[in-house]
Amino acid sequence: MIKPVLVIHGGAGAIPRTETTPEVRQQYEDALRQILNEAGAILAIGGSALDAVTEAVRLLEECPLFNAGYGAVFTSAGKHELDASIMNGKTLQSGAIANVTTVRNPILAARAVMERSSHVFLVGTGADDFAREQGLECVDPAFFSTTARREQLDRVQRTLGGGMVLDHDAQSLSAAPLDEDKKLGTVGAVALDSHGNLAAATSTGGMTNKQPGRVGDAPMIGAGCYANNRSCAVSTTGTGEMFIRMVAAYDVSAQMEYAGRTLEEATHSVVYDKLPTIAGAGGLIAVDAEGNISLPFNTEGMYRGYIKVGEQPFVAIHDKPEEALLSQDG
Amino acid sequence: MIKPVLVIHGGAGAIPRTETTPEVRQQYEDALRQILNEAGAILAIGGSALDAVTEAVRLLEECPLFNAGYGAVFTSAGKHELDASIMNGKTLQSGAIANVTTVRNPILAARAVMERSSHVFLVGTGADDFAREQGLECVDPAFFSTTARREQLDRVQRTLGGGMVLDHDAQSLSAAPLDEDKKLGTVGAVALDSHGNLAAATSTGGMTNKQPGRVGDAPMIGAGCYANNRSCAVSTTGTGEMFIRMVAAYDVSAQMEYAGRTLEEATHSVVYDKLPTIAGAGGLIAVDAEGNISLPFNTEGMYRGYIKVGEQPFVAIHDKPEEALLSQDG
Repeated sequence: MIKPVLVIHGGAGAIPRTETTPEVRQQYEDALRQILNEAGAILAIGGSALDAVTEAVRLLEECPLFNAGYGAVFTSAGKHELDASIMNGKTLQSGAIANVTTVRNPILAARAVMERSSHVFLVGTGADDFAREQGLECVDPAFFSTTARREQLDRVQRTLGGGMVLDHDAQSLSAAPLDEDKKLGTVGAVALDSHGNLAAATSTGGMTNKQPGRVGDAPMIGAGCYANNRSCAVSTTGTGEMFIRMVAAYDVSAQMEYAGRTLEEATHSVVYDKLPTIAGAGGLIAVDAEGNISLPFNTEGMYRGYIKVGEQPFVAIHDKPEEALLSQDG
Repeated sequence: MIKPVLVIHGGAGAIPRTETTPEVRQQYEDALRQILNEAGAILAIGGSALDAVTEAVRLLEECPLFNAGYGAVFTSAGKHELDASIMNGKTLQSGAIANVTTVRNPILAARAVMERSSHVFLVGTGADDFAREQGLECVDPAFFSTTARREQLDRVQRTLGGGMVLDHDAQSLSAAPLDEDKKLGTVGAVALDSHGNLAAATSTGGMTNKQPGRVGDAPMIGAGCYANNRSCAVSTTGTGEMFIRMVAAYDVSAQMEYAGRTLEEATHSVVYDKLPTIAGAGGLIAVDAEGNISLPFNTEGMYRGYIKVGEQPFVAIHDKPEEALLSQDG
């Protein structure tokens, strides 16, 4: 008897606990909880893992607290460049888009690429054009802008004197508590449905003040997103460049399939052992075909949560090991 | 005592043997042989694998016979969109660019991203701008156009009545002998140097008549390119979408590292067993840390060759198993 489960994240590199108020933490936790309840309902009525992760990421994109879709961070040019990916663990079908500027929900564009094109990966205006042709909602690029993110860009550009946030500069990132301006922002979801199918989805606005054209791991199948019914579904968040070099999402699957490791052994190897060798900071969420879940991160925090069908959602921001300290929904 | 070796490919899906003349085959073989000799000389004087694969791919880009750089195929919009990637097996440092239109040698741009930026992957005008800022030679997009490629686009668009070459349509691709218009064009190189370091590089113009914005496996670390001194260096060529879904290049490495397979066992698993399950057509070149090489392909042909320091280069187009039938340079 499979117990369906949905796991989500809203990015690693959370606001330092010491700099947050209970009210701010509550705001994030409430958002995560609501998204888990809404998208988790799809699994509860026998819906697919693919639909559940799509809806979870769409809701995360719509929530301005998280760096994806509405509320995405600004590039150094004061624009938004959005990336997303999705993978079906049953068929290994995949879709991804990068560097789009007008698709309201990048994850829906990634899914359209997977299901309605002959391709896996479209970038730039070609991807925006495809999404529009497919009837997806397109918006003025200014739609994604929020005052909070604009202030973030201004702060970062003032601090750096016009330089970039080197998001691979994990040495300095992990030495100091991460602040919201340096948040390794990505959102993602993984799920196991009642049919035993796995799926994963990831979406991001990238890094505040990023160089135009920079693409991180989020839209890269194998790095930021991977799903395979034989092993697991994974969505990552962190210093994207390091996750690409480690082929992090697929590495979890490969360790399970080829080395016979458990989900937890494989995710811990990637997050605690392998990524730190190249100063990779961040975390990931993963679920395997038996419904085991793992949510490791090597940063101060990771916005995360999960819901098992018929149970209350669990959400957390700081704290680890996460399983021991997850706060149950009142 | 390490014997340095350089392996190159000029794409899978060669001209059917029955439709070629000895003169045409000779032209391709001569080009491969010359590039092996020139880039192989770097290894002979103690140069790095990274420099050897960079130079080999640069020369393949400069050769109009191969679909990368000068002589790249046309998109459906009659333009060129170029992708490339490179990886250093010693450090796992990586660089990639996609969808560039003005960088004369995309592989040099990928290498500049790796060595002179804080990022791994830049796409579109952001990537072109970065390359120009780095002093790399930029050209008018028309530079890449050749009469032969223009005629190919015209033929394909006439045949398809304006449709696209569905390059993932491997069913039809492998049923019929591949023709040059459907060539799964990519170029790539892998090398082991006298210091025991591995490197891989891949570059492509994509598919004739491709949808603007489409990105295949070539610039994706883990899919089209991977190098790790612990295991092997791999460059792939084929129906890019399927190689992305299989995370093909890294899968060779993962099978070696986690399942203890030999280079040949791992490459054969990917090319002959795994890719065909999703109708993936193409091949790859690989070298491991001991200097073993493997060049499997599941298409009618793959332009390929290798040179071991102090020996004559071997080149081949059709024929398999390739090792048995490689024609030695006279």
